[in-house]
Amino acid sequence: MPTEFELIARHFARATPSATLGIGDDAALLNPAGGMELVVSTDMLVAGIHFSRDTPAEMVGSKAMAVNLSDMAAMGATPRWALLAIALPQADEGWLSAFSSGLYGMAETYGVEVVGGDTTRGPLNICMTIMGEVRAGAALRRDGAKVGDEIWVSGQLGAAALALSHQQGTVTLDRDEAAYCLSNLQKPRPRVALGRGLVGVAHAAIDISDGLLADLGHILERSGVGAELMLNVLPAAPPVRVRLPEPVSMACLLAGGDDYELCFTAPADRRREILQTGERAGVELASVGRIVEGTGVRVLGPDGRPMQIPGRGYDHFA
Amino acid sequence: MPTEFELIARHFARATPSATLGIGDDAALLNPAGGMELVVSTDMLVAGIHFSRDTPAEMVGSKAMAVNLSDMAAMGATPRWALLAIALPQADEGWLSAFSSGLYGMAETYGVEVVGGDTTRGPLNICMTIMGEVRAGAALRRDGAKVGDEIWVSGQLGAAALALSHQQGTVTLDRDEAAYCLSNLQKPRPRVALGRGLVGVAHAAIDISDGLLADLGHILERSGVGAELMLNVLPAAPPVRVRLPEPVSMACLLAGGDDYELCFTAPADRRREILQTGERAGVELASVGRIVEGTGVRVLGPDGRPMQIPGRGYDHFA
Repeated sequence: MPTEFELIARHFARATPSATLGIGDDAALLNPAGGMELVVSTDMLVAGIHFSRDTPAEMVGSKAMAVNLSDMAAMGATPRWALLAIALPQADEGWLSAFSSGLYGMAETYGVEVVGGDTTRGPLNICMTIMGEVRAGAALRRDGAKVGDEIWVSGQLGAAALALSHQQGTVTLDRDEAAYCLSNLQKPRPRVALGRGLVGVAHAAIDISDGLLADLGHILERSGVGAELMLNVLPAAPPVRVRLPEPVSMACLLAGGDDYELCFTAPADRRREILQTGERAGVELASVGRIVEGTGVRVLGPDGRPMQIPGRGYDHFA
Repeated sequence: MPTEFELIARHFARATPSATLGIGDDAALLNPAGGMELVVSTDMLVAGIHFSRDTPAEMVGSKAMAVNLSDMAAMGATPRWALLAIALPQADEGWLSAFSSGLYGMAETYGVEVVGGDTTRGPLNICMTIMGEVRAGAALRRDGAKVGDEIWVSGQLGAAALALSHQQGTVTLDRDEAAYCLSNLQKPRPRVALGRGLVGVAHAAIDISDGLLADLGHILERSGVGAELMLNVLPAAPPVRVRLPEPVSMACLLAGGDDYELCFTAPADRRREILQTGERAGVELASVGRIVEGTGVRVLGPDGRPMQIPGRGYDHFA
């Protein structure tokens, strides 16, 4: 049986040239750049809650990194360093090797170094903390939305949630659709370049992890404003779009997470810069509504009238 | 049933004046001071592994903070900010209230602000990440021990481990002894002031979490040196000392964790400063041996001859 230290050495110790001191001491030593603010976030993924026990380990690894990268994207930050704490039921070297390959694959793509962590025994649980940098005062926060702002959404929504519904048997996709949706679930693309490009342009931003309505709702609550969304311009992924307005499809579009897209608000006169930013970042952007006075989200149907929307997103204790 | 957001608001949202942005966004925003290095560490505590399921919640909370503060102490860092990720089997408000009271009690004592985190459902697991600051280049690392250094230990060793042995029934303490040992286990005092005072004086430091031999061993390995310890000057806690050389007592002294003491090395000519630093920090310091050429630890018995020592510390997968 390998020791804890051997496991770390074998699967989690890579060079960390951007850190003064990486894995192997009581703490890591980092030198954030001058004039920058430190952006810090943590996410915990639990087997049986955030991923099923038969999810391929590589996908668990890339997802653990992706949810954190997505938080950096939502702040407009450049991700730099991560810490990985992991509880493992046993020292399964095959699982660990695939997990670390998924995790470090994402980390390298986005220029993040894993500088420390903790390895222990316990029910499978992955807790990743990420640190990034943003110009002081320039972060994209949730509390900056202004009445009159346009609301934007990146990419397409609902494919990852539809893949989950397909896996759970609540919807049946044909083979091509299933492959399309699954690839969205399995190959997350956190919108880091987009987030960075929106600094100085967007008023507020969030990543869509609990579903569009719930996450936009966080922006509204923190900013003290309301919103109107137009259902027929929401960028539904094709397999979601063809099933509208079936309830499962509506739920994927409005309350599905796991797409790692951004929702942000910006003044209407920044439209051209925003579209250029999307182009440079290689992601489609859709203007889906506007910030209004009041509270909460109204979704307007094809006839321009407010629709009744059940269920608003995922809550771990509801 | 309270929602995830209500739970956070009720138990974990306190003012964070030292952060630009605290709990409630995709990430926290922090401004580390100029000329300082950022010191970052994470520790995961799993129910049934790091604490038993009937451990009082307040103690779990203070321990979660203490292990992280102890890592800062071992680096000579000033702890500043923490992130708390927690998986809970259910939303038990009584448990959460006691847990957060223990956690924030420690946080306030040591001037740490909890600026973010994650709350989810799952087998009880607490993952805390701590961030501190130290003058650039001045951190106490594990790799700086030099041949000829004296080896020092703070406080007294073994009481917390003896309390655990008592709870597990492998040793029987009388009522006063049990109370003394339990209070060490339940009221951790991470040596933050001592660690800060040792910056510029000590060559290497570590906190004793896996046991003196194992943790000193990490310093030796990273520094490429060996060590000699003198058994009869090791600062055993009184209930441990009176049981020496019984194996359970030897194990508590040499391989017990949970005392949150520091082990450090320093040049012999800094002895006076070190003792003054200990006095200012309100903690006894004992000179327990010296760094020598070679590898590994030799423990010298009362007759000055090397002793045979079984078992070297705790490993989660051994």
